[in-house]
Amino acid sequence: MLYTPPIARLVEELSKLPGVGQKTAQRLAFHLLKVPAAEAHSLAEAIVEARDRVTFCVRCFNFAQGELCEYCMDSRRDPTLVCVVERPQDIVALERTGEFRGLYHVLGGAISPIDGIGPEELRIRELLERVRTEGIREVIVATNPRVEGEATGLYLANLLKPLDIKVTRIASGLPVGGDLEYADEVTLGRALKGRLDL
Amino acid sequence: MLYTPPIARLVEELSKLPGVGQKTAQRLAFHLLKVPAAEAHSLAEAIVEARDRVTFCVRCFNFAQGELCEYCMDSRRDPTLVCVVERPQDIVALERTGEFRGLYHVLGGAISPIDGIGPEELRIRELLERVRTEGIREVIVATNPRVEGEATGLYLANLLKPLDIKVTRIASGLPVGGDLEYADEVTLGRALKGRLDL
Repeated sequence: MLYTPPIARLVEELSKLPGVGQKTAQRLAFHLLKVPAAEAHSLAEAIVEARDRVTFCVRCFNFAQGELCEYCMDSRRDPTLVCVVERPQDIVALERTGEFRGLYHVLGGAISPIDGIGPEELRIRELLERVRTEGIREVIVATNPRVEGEATGLYLANLLKPLDIKVTRIASGLPVGGDLEYADEVTLGRALKGRLDL
Repeated sequence: MLYTPPIARLVEELSKLPGVGQKTAQRLAFHLLKVPAAEAHSLAEAIVEARDRVTFCVRCFNFAQGELCEYCMDSRRDPTLVCVVERPQDIVALERTGEFRGLYHVLGGAISPIDGIGPEELRIRELLERVRTEGIREVIVATNPRVEGEATGLYLANLLKPLDIKVTRIASGLPVGGDLEYADEVTLGRALKGRLDL
C-alpha cells in the first residue's frame, strides 16, 4: 500500500478529473495536505456549494442560481437577439468579448450521430418555442466550428428560416477544429461581427 | 460578471492548485458541474477526510493515520536502516522501487538559505535523537540531487559520522532508459562513481 487510506482515496478522486493523471493527482493531493487546512476545506466547500446551489436557467439552460440566469434576468439585454451555443462555458467565452448584448440559448451539445446525439437530445424544441413566443428577430448560431457544430447550425437554419426570422452563423476567423472555450477574445469578437446568413 | 457566484468561487479555489491556471480551473469547474452530483461530493469529502484524518507520524514525520505511520508500525521492516527524505511523497517514490525495507525520516525540506530554510527549520534534531536511541546502523540520505539536497546531505554527514554509524547517499546517475549522448557532464560524472560513502 503506497498511501495511507485517506490519501489513497483523495488521489483516486483527483485522478478522475479531466487531464489529471496519477502523477498529477498525487501532486495535488500532497499539495492539499500541505496547505493550511482552511484552504483545503474552502476548496471542498466550493465544490459542494457549486453542486448544491447551481441550477439550470428554465429559459436558456445556462447555469443559474434560482429560476433564471443572470442574462435572462438582465433587462438591459436585447431579448430579440438570441445566441445559440453548445455549452454554458461557451457563454463565458462570448461574454469575454464584450461584443454581444442579447440573450443565449444552450443546446446542451451538438448533433453527433456517432455519439448517439440526435436533435431530440438537444434543447432545440425549447429554442423553437422561444422563437414562437418571445418575439426573437435574429438567432445567431455559435456552435463550435467543427463538423458537429456546422451540422447543428444547418439543421437549426432549416427549422428557423420558415419562422421568418434572421438566422446567422458566427464567422470563420476561428481556426476550424478549434474550440470556443479556448478562443481568444479578439478572434471571437471578430467572429461575432462577421457573422453570415445561413 | 462572467460566472454565477458559486461557479466563480469554485474556479477561484481550483486555480489555487499548483499547475492549474484560470483556463484549467474553468474546465475543471464545468466538469464538476456536469458529472453526477455524487462524484463531485465524493471529491469534496475525500479532501475533507484527508485533511481531518491524516496526521504526521510522531517518529518519522511521514503522513499517518494515528500516532505512527504504516512503515513505523510494520515489524517486518528493518529499524536499523533509515532513509532520510525531504518530503512524504519521496517515500512513495522509494516504495515503488520495492528495493528498500528499512524505515524513513522526513526532514520537511532541504537547507536553502535563499528560501530562509536553515537546519533548524528541518527535523534534523529529531533524526539525531532517533540515531541516539533507536540503534540505527545506517542512514541513507535520499534528498533530491540538487544543490539544496546535496548541501543538506553533507550537513547531515558531518553531524552523523561522529555518532559512529554508516552514512550513505543514494547514487546520482543516468536515469534508466536514458542516453549517454544527452546526459549532462555532472550527471555522467556521478554515474561513473556510483553510490559512495559520504
